[in-house]
Amino acid sequence: MKYMSRNQLIQEKLAQAVDILNEFDVDVWLTFVRETSMQPDPALELIAGLDVTWQSAFLVSCTGQHTAIVGYYDGANVEALGPYKVVTYHQGIGKHLTAVLHQLNPRTIAINYSESDVAADGLSYGLYRTLLAYLDGSYRERLISAEKIIAALRGRKSQTEIERMKQAIAITQKLFDEVEAFVKPGMSQRQIAAFVHQRIAEMGLDYAWPKPFNPIVTCGPNSAIGHAAPGDVVLQKGHTLHLDLGVKQDDYCSDLQRMWYVLDDGETEAPAEVQRAFLVVRDAIKAGEQALRPGVPGWQVDEVAREFIVDNGYPEYMHGLGHLLGRSAHDGATILGPRWEKYAGICDMLVEVGNVFTLELHVVVPGRGIMSLEEDVLVTENGVEYLSTPQEELRYIRG
Amino acid sequence: MKYMSRNQLIQEKLAQAVDILNEFDVDVWLTFVRETSMQPDPALELIAGLDVTWQSAFLVSCTGQHTAIVGYYDGANVEALGPYKVVTYHQGIGKHLTAVLHQLNPRTIAINYSESDVAADGLSYGLYRTLLAYLDGSYRERLISAEKIIAALRGRKSQTEIERMKQAIAITQKLFDEVEAFVKPGMSQRQIAAFVHQRIAEMGLDYAWPKPFNPIVTCGPNSAIGHAAPGDVVLQKGHTLHLDLGVKQDDYCSDLQRMWYVLDDGETEAPAEVQRAFLVVRDAIKAGEQALRPGVPGWQVDEVAREFIVDNGYPEYMHGLGHLLGRSAHDGATILGPRWEKYAGICDMLVEVGNVFTLELHVVVPGRGIMSLEEDVLVTENGVEYLSTPQEELRYIRG
Repeated sequence: MKYMSRNQLIQEKLAQAVDILNEFDVDVWLTFVRETSMQPDPALELIAGLDVTWQSAFLVSCTGQHTAIVGYYDGANVEALGPYKVVTYHQGIGKHLTAVLHQLNPRTIAINYSESDVAADGLSYGLYRTLLAYLDGSYRERLISAEKIIAALRGRKSQTEIERMKQAIAITQKLFDEVEAFVKPGMSQRQIAAFVHQRIAEMGLDYAWPKPFNPIVTCGPNSAIGHAAPGDVVLQKGHTLHLDLGVKQDDYCSDLQRMWYVLDDGETEAPAEVQRAFLVVRDAIKAGEQALRPGVPGWQVDEVAREFIVDNGYPEYMHGLGHLLGRSAHDGATILGPRWEKYAGICDMLVEVGNVFTLELHVVVPGRGIMSLEEDVLVTENGVEYLSTPQEELRYIRG
Repeated sequence: MKYMSRNQLIQEKLAQAVDILNEFDVDVWLTFVRETSMQPDPALELIAGLDVTWQSAFLVSCTGQHTAIVGYYDGANVEALGPYKVVTYHQGIGKHLTAVLHQLNPRTIAINYSESDVAADGLSYGLYRTLLAYLDGSYRERLISAEKIIAALRGRKSQTEIERMKQAIAITQKLFDEVEAFVKPGMSQRQIAAFVHQRIAEMGLDYAWPKPFNPIVTCGPNSAIGHAAPGDVVLQKGHTLHLDLGVKQDDYCSDLQRMWYVLDDGETEAPAEVQRAFLVVRDAIKAGEQALRPGVPGWQVDEVAREFIVDNGYPEYMHGLGHLLGRSAHDGATILGPRWEKYAGICDMLVEVGNVFTLELHVVVPGRGIMSLEEDVLVTENGVEYLSTPQEELRYIRG
């Protein structure tokens, strides 16, 4: 496959953004940022893929004529991207911004805030106040949330983006195979994580989420469940081993969970309750996958898997079934989850073609450990394509 | 020196925060965040040093009794920090947050927004709206900006923080020596940057700002000045070589610029105009350093250096003389810079004991290249302590 450069990918996403602006009948989408290495706006990586220092405005227009107003010292970098008419300044952005808006005279100006979607909420409250101070009343009244635009642009993956995610997922699966060959009972969570860290460094990969919590390594019933850092808990015979691992390669992420059982002396397979838990978790994910179709709200997908778990006698999992995956492990917008307060609004969003979701859930086997799987799938016109090779059978570690 | 763990440093900064709350007569400081790996709040690294997933509230109290309300799966990590009473939730934070506030009944609640200080502006506009929706009117009226608190907490470096910065600065100076031994005329910016990247990887250091622009390598008069990535411009005899490099070690940064001249055939020293430019830049920084005292507003320090440059017949530099340095290369708050629109308010802030500033400026030598230096200094009761060993003489590359 032809390799697409960062600039080409930016141009591809900007062309997609123009279509989305027209689809939602929005004239201008304004990304207003400063010091983005300290205060990143997740939208900026989609439309520019660089950091800027002083207050900067990226105006994406439904006409396809885009403008960037940036500090003088950032001008050359933004110019090199290609698609922006670049205006630079030395002392202040205000008059340049109002001049460009006056020229464009948009009916609506979408800005990056959202109560429900973190990926569409890159505008800080201080910068929002600054922006209001620059704009006179008639422009202030045209401000709307860009959350729909950003959710569509981030969520509808292009072919290039999908290929990059496949690559990250494939290498993650290879890493799981290496872990399986490496691990022995008696090793600590920390040792197992250190092995993965070493291999990630050797392969020149990045992390899909911060390294201290990546991979999450859960050994048996005495490990904390959740986002804990790998510690001193030792893997024992008769316990489960669980890894939650995500890498980032060429800016795109994987996010997968795999399960092993450590055979006890004399055992040739896992005890019945461990095997049953594996099958229920595997099949709950499949049930969710069957419900994952374009046009369905996220909560409906979650509900199918959740009911499957409960119908099989396990307590429901206290998180969502899945999230979008892409440039980040939690890639914003639609969640496949219950309509709890903390998922305000985002579980009502509709699944779209081109979305890449995780499907993940767990149950606990008393005395044995957690049983938790996670797959990565692409939503297509007709249903779902697995980007990962789903774990169909429990894997084993031998003593 | 005794090594201080992350948790000890967090406890040290939290104790400092209590003093600062009392100094400014603020009852509670609320850091309200979510999905901090995608939407980081720079204040969180000072008071918790970890990432959280769901909506989370860190309430630092003037009484020293701190509370953190976080999602269930993040509870163990926050508990392990030590200083927080931890409340966890599954479905929504709202009722827990209002219950804690009701119990504390603060007169004032400082939240993280600022128009002038990016490091104090971690609250997104969407999260601000979410917060307002949780609070009833009487609490809304108690909200104030935490910018003074954050500026003081981040800006007043503890002894531990200063020691870490000294360590990062020392290793950066060693890197400059290595660059000097490595570089030959005919090398490209890219080759020089690649050498530094390799050494940084070998030493296990992080970058003070993103690697594509770190170091900035300026070779002669044909390199872009500013934040450009190293490219194909080749270092030539008779030109200047400039590096702007910052590393991060144990979470603390350096930020230094050094200057070389590449001797031309037959030359034993740089031409007079190159030497003069070096001395003027060096002495302008010294003039600024002489004006850098506790209680002085940032713009006054800048003005002294700026006038020195102009009085010596060079055009003024179109940026500030210096910025704070710490966990980030641009560590927020006070800027030593002119009162331009883009520096709104932050150049009026007063220099404080414990601040670590960069001092940096440049002039251009036509046909030869940029002449730009940067030192890192600590503000003390009586003046300034250099954390870097200032460049007193122009350095040379021989063919």
